[in-house]
Amino acid sequence: MDKTLGTLFHETLKDVYYAERKILKALPKMARGANSPELETAFLAHRQETEGQVERLQMIFEIIGERAQGKTCDAIEGILAEGDEVLGTYKGAPALDAGLVAAAQAVEHYEIARYNTLKAWATELGLPDVAELLDRTLAEEVAADLLLSELAGRTIDRAAIAAE
Amino acid sequence: MDKTLGTLFHETLKDVYYAERKILKALPKMARGANSPELETAFLAHRQETEGQVERLQMIFEIIGERAQGKTCDAIEGILAEGDEVLGTYKGAPALDAGLVAAAQAVEHYEIARYNTLKAWATELGLPDVAELLDRTLAEEVAADLLLSELAGRTIDRAAIAAE
Repeated sequence: MDKTLGTLFHETLKDVYYAERKILKALPKMARGANSPELETAFLAHRQETEGQVERLQMIFEIIGERAQGKTCDAIEGILAEGDEVLGTYKGAPALDAGLVAAAQAVEHYEIARYNTLKAWATELGLPDVAELLDRTLAEEVAADLLLSELAGRTIDRAAIAAE
Repeated sequence: MDKTLGTLFHETLKDVYYAERKILKALPKMARGANSPELETAFLAHRQETEGQVERLQMIFEIIGERAQGKTCDAIEGILAEGDEVLGTYKGAPALDAGLVAAAQAVEHYEIARYNTLKAWATELGLPDVAELLDRTLAEEVAADLLLSELAGRTIDRAAIAAE
């Protein structure tokens, strides 16, 4: 394997592709678990958005002339495992939604870090179309993170506090 | 185990405490591996900063009347495993530093997500002193992430590109 920035870009793209498809599977489970209908809706909406992000990644694989394939991403496995633990431990408890939002924001931040990196590398590699596709997803992830912060502040924590 | 927001706060504090101590051990290894002296210095400086962050967490445990202890954090294990993989795979290659910066930024973003969450919860729980301590660390993590972006843009990627 050649070890240039192009290789690193391709390997990281596979990492994110794996991560997004794992997230696609995790979001309905988080939606089903949520206490608040508002949070459930947000998770389902983000699942739909994630489908578009997976498609964008497939377009990028095509642009760089590679087959769309994932590579096990230990980071997302670990992050999603923590979300699963929250779902298991806080099931039915008022603090569940606060924990779910926190888990989802850890996911968003992993993606934000990765898309920021990939976008910078695409620019350096002279791939403006790819950088543009990555930037669109990045903007969605940042917006999703902000929405989760809002949801946390507005509805979720108060329910948990009331139960203290 | 009681399942209130207070419990969630305490459990997440243990998660971050574990993560920070893992990061303390990982940073010197990343510094030793870096090609660029500037990146090596940045990793070592952030190690020193991380020591202060661990102390702040110990102060928070004291404030909430709990013993400072960690709890295995699957997320940081996975994120650091990816950094290790980069160190192993790109050893001696010009793209190594770009990969190390990306790995370090994934770590920073995990911490940013966690400290944002903990700070919001501390405020909801009526613990302004704790929120203030968390905010100081949060500001350091955000600054560390920005510095890494700068380093990546300035020196690292260009070296990797030149080798394409």
